[in-house]
Amino acid sequence: MHEFTLIERYFAPLAGEAGLGLADDAAVFTPPQGRQLVVAVDALVAGVHFLPDDPPETIGRKLLRVNLSDLAAMDATPLSYLLTLSAPRDTPEAWFAAFATGLAADQAKYGITLIGGDTTSTPGPLSLTATVIGHVAPGQALRRNGAHPGDGIWVTGTIGDGALGLLARQGRLPDPDGFLADRYQLPRPRHGLSLAGIANAAMDVSDGLLQDIGQLCKASGVGADIDAALVPRSPQAKRAGPTYLETCLTGGDDYELVLAVPEGRAADLQAACARRDVPVTRIGHFAAGNVAVRVTTSGAPMPIARPGWSHF
Amino acid sequence: MHEFTLIERYFAPLAGEAGLGLADDAAVFTPPQGRQLVVAVDALVAGVHFLPDDPPETIGRKLLRVNLSDLAAMDATPLSYLLTLSAPRDTPEAWFAAFATGLAADQAKYGITLIGGDTTSTPGPLSLTATVIGHVAPGQALRRNGAHPGDGIWVTGTIGDGALGLLARQGRLPDPDGFLADRYQLPRPRHGLSLAGIANAAMDVSDGLLQDIGQLCKASGVGADIDAALVPRSPQAKRAGPTYLETCLTGGDDYELVLAVPEGRAADLQAACARRDVPVTRIGHFAAGNVAVRVTTSGAPMPIARPGWSHF
Repeated sequence: MHEFTLIERYFAPLAGEAGLGLADDAAVFTPPQGRQLVVAVDALVAGVHFLPDDPPETIGRKLLRVNLSDLAAMDATPLSYLLTLSAPRDTPEAWFAAFATGLAADQAKYGITLIGGDTTSTPGPLSLTATVIGHVAPGQALRRNGAHPGDGIWVTGTIGDGALGLLARQGRLPDPDGFLADRYQLPRPRHGLSLAGIANAAMDVSDGLLQDIGQLCKASGVGADIDAALVPRSPQAKRAGPTYLETCLTGGDDYELVLAVPEGRAADLQAACARRDVPVTRIGHFAAGNVAVRVTTSGAPMPIARPGWSHF
Repeated sequence: MHEFTLIERYFAPLAGEAGLGLADDAAVFTPPQGRQLVVAVDALVAGVHFLPDDPPETIGRKLLRVNLSDLAAMDATPLSYLLTLSAPRDTPEAWFAAFATGLAADQAKYGITLIGGDTTSTPGPLSLTATVIGHVAPGQALRRNGAHPGDGIWVTGTIGDGALGLLARQGRLPDPDGFLADRYQLPRPRHGLSLAGIANAAMDVSDGLLQDIGQLCKASGVGADIDAALVPRSPQAKRAGPTYLETCLTGGDDYELVLAVPEGRAADLQAACARRDVPVTRIGHFAAGNVAVRVTTSGAPMPIARPGWSHF
């Protein structure tokens, strides 16, 4: 099938007005009046970020969600996205159909439309990117560099399910109810929390909680003290046992938010999260001095072999 | 080397203000007052869009230029870009350094800055995308759907050098002065022509001149009559001989503009292009009726085996 047919059949129906029917060289849109734009891009590669035999519906949705999680970290409202898809030449048409079905479902869920993209072949694994565009009130984007010593360290949802879900998908961990695999395949970006004025800093947890908190510490020039026992884990993650605690703290693929919140705003944070039915848990506090993440368990320092994921 | 080190060392120095030092989850910027935004994304894959042994400096520049060519087709002014880079784990640090040097050179040339991105590993070939953001006066973006019967078909620069340059790089065509290989590796996007009010339609030539004109015809509901002898070719392309005429017309990788211009605006077009030292040539006209591209040579129909490139 010619790539133009592929685009017309499966992607043009996903296009918003700015996408010009995906029949032009670029998207054109009028930015929302009086707002700043927030733009992020993430790449997913088969065998690295998802498994080649993951259902194509979930692959498109994961692609959108990991990107929407970046917007959520900045407290931005999503607007639209662009897609690149580099696929092996023998990718069956049914794969594209299912992939587009997944995108359509999440477009409806998150109120976004496709506005552009590029479809190419590759001699390698399926590789995807989404560029997401959102908007925020001027000066209100949450940054990583605003944490103050004394701020509580809070995380949304539960940590570790994604990393354990990958092990489950690889047959290395039991997952009787499929919960962990589902969390690996379908992250839940924490959009719409409206935390400007409540959180001093935020980032999304994608490369491992401890490593990502380390990044936030570096940007803010603070240290962090974390009690591993306070890190929220799902019943399914707890069932994996204490051997997997470190995997949860460092494995990544969480797409939850980590937040720096002054103690006086903790109640506001909890109320904002409750309005969206998002659990939020205090796991420690930021501290002055040395830019380092200190983790304790039962009051004793917890040794960590590798704080998170690196591609290289 | 940890990917964070890679980003800090080679990509953070390329970041504009909106990129927040590449230390946050997304870019944040205030869109230019009273302008529409224009956004395009293109993917390049080693072995498909460039050769794995192309100089890394040119790979980054080609990535930017194919994307800037999309903005040029819409008559938009470039502003910034986001980058994704999926590289094999054994990619040497020197490759990243040279790649970033190429990006820096073209950032300066085109007045753009890096504002975000993602760096991942891949078990496959090096894969890159750039998302470029530009702006245009409201309603002034050039589209593909505005061509009228009777409009002249004009192209900038010369056609076919990129496709012949690939053959030269593969050792299948002599290229004594390296001109053709250079045109394959370093396209020249035709930005800044300011053709709103002069051209009725525009697109960039990337997948083969005849196929791309066919796309423009389809969007505009017109046909096209082209005299192959009028299609501008470089001395080096002409030297390849008549056997390669069809390759020039259908090979792609030109990143020139094809324009629909009313006969009464031809002089304005020529003046606008002359101001930027861009050659521009009339190769035929759009016609009412059947949406088809008719090519003649010496007055006789020229049979075309395949009008352009398809990835699938």
